[in-house]
Amino acid sequence: MANTIKKGRLIAASLGPGDPGLITRAAWDVLQTAPCWAWPVGRKDGQSYALAIVERAGLEPPPGKIPLFFPMTRDLNELAASWLEAGQKVKKVLDEGVDVAFLVEGDASFFSTFGHLERTVRGLDPDLEIEIIPGVCSPLASAALEGHALCEGDERVAVVAATNKIDEIERMLHDFDAMVLMKVRPVLEPILDLLTKKDLLKKTVFVERAGTPDERIIKDVTELRGQKVHYLSLMIIHCNDGEQALGMNG
Amino acid sequence: MANTIKKGRLIAASLGPGDPGLITRAAWDVLQTAPCWAWPVGRKDGQSYALAIVERAGLEPPPGKIPLFFPMTRDLNELAASWLEAGQKVKKVLDEGVDVAFLVEGDASFFSTFGHLERTVRGLDPDLEIEIIPGVCSPLASAALEGHALCEGDERVAVVAATNKIDEIERMLHDFDAMVLMKVRPVLEPILDLLTKKDLLKKTVFVERAGTPDERIIKDVTELRGQKVHYLSLMIIHCNDGEQALGMNG
Repeated sequence: MANTIKKGRLIAASLGPGDPGLITRAAWDVLQTAPCWAWPVGRKDGQSYALAIVERAGLEPPPGKIPLFFPMTRDLNELAASWLEAGQKVKKVLDEGVDVAFLVEGDASFFSTFGHLERTVRGLDPDLEIEIIPGVCSPLASAALEGHALCEGDERVAVVAATNKIDEIERMLHDFDAMVLMKVRPVLEPILDLLTKKDLLKKTVFVERAGTPDERIIKDVTELRGQKVHYLSLMIIHCNDGEQALGMNG
Repeated sequence: MANTIKKGRLIAASLGPGDPGLITRAAWDVLQTAPCWAWPVGRKDGQSYALAIVERAGLEPPPGKIPLFFPMTRDLNELAASWLEAGQKVKKVLDEGVDVAFLVEGDASFFSTFGHLERTVRGLDPDLEIEIIPGVCSPLASAALEGHALCEGDERVAVVAATNKIDEIERMLHDFDAMVLMKVRPVLEPILDLLTKKDLLKKTVFVERAGTPDERIIKDVTELRGQKVHYLSLMIIHCNDGEQALGMNG
């Protein structure tokens, strides 16, 4: 495969949040044709959530396989070392003229590890060709499962990590028609306290691992008290439901 | 096709914002099998943006065809009459036991006309089966084209119609890391004034009809001064770029 003239392309293949039916036709084509897949793993010997989506679609990895370790840590030294190692591994294959499809759970531009890989690869060689295939993001897959539009007309939506300051989240509940809280796991109890205080429990849905065999959709979020939930879970809060829904849609 | 026992299903087939490659496998399957398609048109004799996406994919409508008129107006009487007429047309086919695929540009839960149709059909018959297939939304398709993540780590994103009050939008520019302004057409000049005042012109991208043959991506948004733009256009403002990007991604 080596080719000293034409380098390979790095392609972010967004797969949607879990249901293999939500893979786009463009991502599907890339999965069929790319001679090498890379995928993120959160532990050195761990499973890849992104790879599992593709496997549920009945696909097997091609001969080229690059598991990339992206640790779940906030230690900057550890992160920087992992990103550099990942970027170098991918660059080595691209330099051989081989296209690499990076498997992305959800969408590559929406709270994804792909940004780290892209920056590192660009830093190592600014001339490498990078393509991003967008995908279905978890809030919209969750809204479809809930059967309730996320936003209509002139409504306003805020999407924030639930790890943001709770008083800021409280203020946003007033300013927006809908809120999506990502990464609720570490702050589940304080968020439930806030929803109780604002009388929003009945306007909230919790969705965990949307579209996977382990999917949970919980409409009575008080059930979550005292529970441990998966890292890939979110809440949609219809905080000012229906008030501005009459405007024109696009 | 008539069947007095089993009624047809209404299926929202989200198609993504314009590129037929962004149709999901699930929506593609529905397009292949549904004996009837319905699609929104904004003028009585007008073209359908949603139908055009599917036609660019090389598909032709099945024998059952229901163009549904959703006028671009804020006149509540006119809207209510159009929604009722659309709902009745679709219900008539569902009552005959025929599945109807409603073609959705973008995503059905994201500023879509589908909500109006769903509410009307449910109002006419609460027992009808409705399925929503989510899709790629225009902000994420635009972010992929721009090559710049919409959000990473613990960042906060606001998605609002640009027709919201300009002082509220100005406040959100401080509170969020990225903002997506939908429906910029009627307020383009005041938005450009605001971006100039906040020194955000260079952190803004304008995207019109993403993924279609008429797509425009404008990174120097001052070019837009005095221009008329299409209804399907948006701006992404990276208002506090990169400050919180180091957190863990999902």
